[in-house]
Amino acid sequence: MMRGRLLGLGVGPGDPELITLKALRLLRAAPVVAYFVAKAKANRGQGGNAFAIIEAHLDEAQQRMPLVYPVTTEALAPPLSYEDVISDFYDTCAVKIAAKLDAGRDVAVICEGDPLFYGSYMYLHDRLAGRYEVEVVPGVCSMLGCASVLGTPLVYRNQSLSVLSGVLDEAELEHRLREAEAAVVMKLGRNFDKVRRVLRKLGLDGRAHYVERATMAEQKIVPLDEVEPMSSPYFSMILVPGEPWRG
Amino acid sequence: MMRGRLLGLGVGPGDPELITLKALRLLRAAPVVAYFVAKAKANRGQGGNAFAIIEAHLDEAQQRMPLVYPVTTEALAPPLSYEDVISDFYDTCAVKIAAKLDAGRDVAVICEGDPLFYGSYMYLHDRLAGRYEVEVVPGVCSMLGCASVLGTPLVYRNQSLSVLSGVLDEAELEHRLREAEAAVVMKLGRNFDKVRRVLRKLGLDGRAHYVERATMAEQKIVPLDEVEPMSSPYFSMILVPGEPWRG
Repeated sequence: MMRGRLLGLGVGPGDPELITLKALRLLRAAPVVAYFVAKAKANRGQGGNAFAIIEAHLDEAQQRMPLVYPVTTEALAPPLSYEDVISDFYDTCAVKIAAKLDAGRDVAVICEGDPLFYGSYMYLHDRLAGRYEVEVVPGVCSMLGCASVLGTPLVYRNQSLSVLSGVLDEAELEHRLREAEAAVVMKLGRNFDKVRRVLRKLGLDGRAHYVERATMAEQKIVPLDEVEPMSSPYFSMILVPGEPWRG
Repeated sequence: MMRGRLLGLGVGPGDPELITLKALRLLRAAPVVAYFVAKAKANRGQGGNAFAIIEAHLDEAQQRMPLVYPVTTEALAPPLSYEDVISDFYDTCAVKIAAKLDAGRDVAVICEGDPLFYGSYMYLHDRLAGRYEVEVVPGVCSMLGCASVLGTPLVYRNQSLSVLSGVLDEAELEHRLREAEAAVVMKLGRNFDKVRRVLRKLGLDGRAHYVERATMAEQKIVPLDEVEPMSSPYFSMILVPGEPWRG
């Protein structure tokens, strides 16, 4: 029997119209559709951000395979460690998907943004790509969704772009932002206040833009000074566009 | 009379199926479709990379507006300077587009990859967005097209990504690549040999992947050691993915 194919499908940053023709074609043809979802959302019967983007395209015959994260924070009480718990979780997900592939069914894993750019799909890919046929369809990543709703060119000509995680410690963030010509800081959430402090110290706050849930119905663009640090969601982002080059 | 809208439409990295539903909808509705094209291609009656991606979707009633680059290299004989020549060119393009907008016609500028990520569209945007209504549709950028055809996760978890231009001088490239956890080097062309030399010096050549024209019919993935420096096209790219995090 032919084994199934693993499909990593980028579905874009949030607006359902920002899916590609190719991702949509492969999604519609997939007998099994897998998606990551937070436990709290799964408990409310919801399907997560990526699922919400594509739900309208599914028909009843397609099997849904929610992959429910066991933890919602990286801070766990000992003897538990986030790394161990999440690694076991990805192992279990890979086993479930492999069972479908072995039964000859294609499995589409849908991914917010792009599958290979900070996506959870990567951990399934690394576990399965050596053993099964895999196809990855790239997607519009969230930082470019942000730039589009801001209407702000992100990087000019020969400028360098630094994409940074807000979890970096303050000294490291400062070092990397000081050297950046253009920058994107992701994973804000409770890191927001630290990131804003560094931007102010470097005099970059005037050039920085803050966006929550870009391209989604709940999108918010808030002046950096007015963001309530405790209310910043994890999937918010700060863009520091490069200095305009007139061209 | 209502003035037309300027639309910056990302059409993805090359595979025509990697256009988004939204870009396709706005493209089909646009009375004027503008696109940048190199002089040599224009002289052969061709429309450039972005135009090739979307040509099949146009109907005869839609007006084509080629924007033909006056130069193909940044090295010009004095008293000409690339900056002056290209700046005049973008001024002229903006005037032509503004005339259509003033006549009440929407103008879609189609952009390979994403419009605000190193795209020529940005120079029209900066000249027109203050005066006209503008909508930008983000696209799948070429570096994520490259990652998808390589089947290689690009950035894990809290790693930083550095996107660099191959035109940087050797010392600057070395400095930035030494600090990068994951990197993309664009604009190779005649910069290829210098970039490869730096990667070898830093011991990064084993992790580096070279791709030409990712997701297009003419796509080539070549081992770094086997690339002929003089044959590397400008739109080739090197990816240095982050070290895998098992998750």
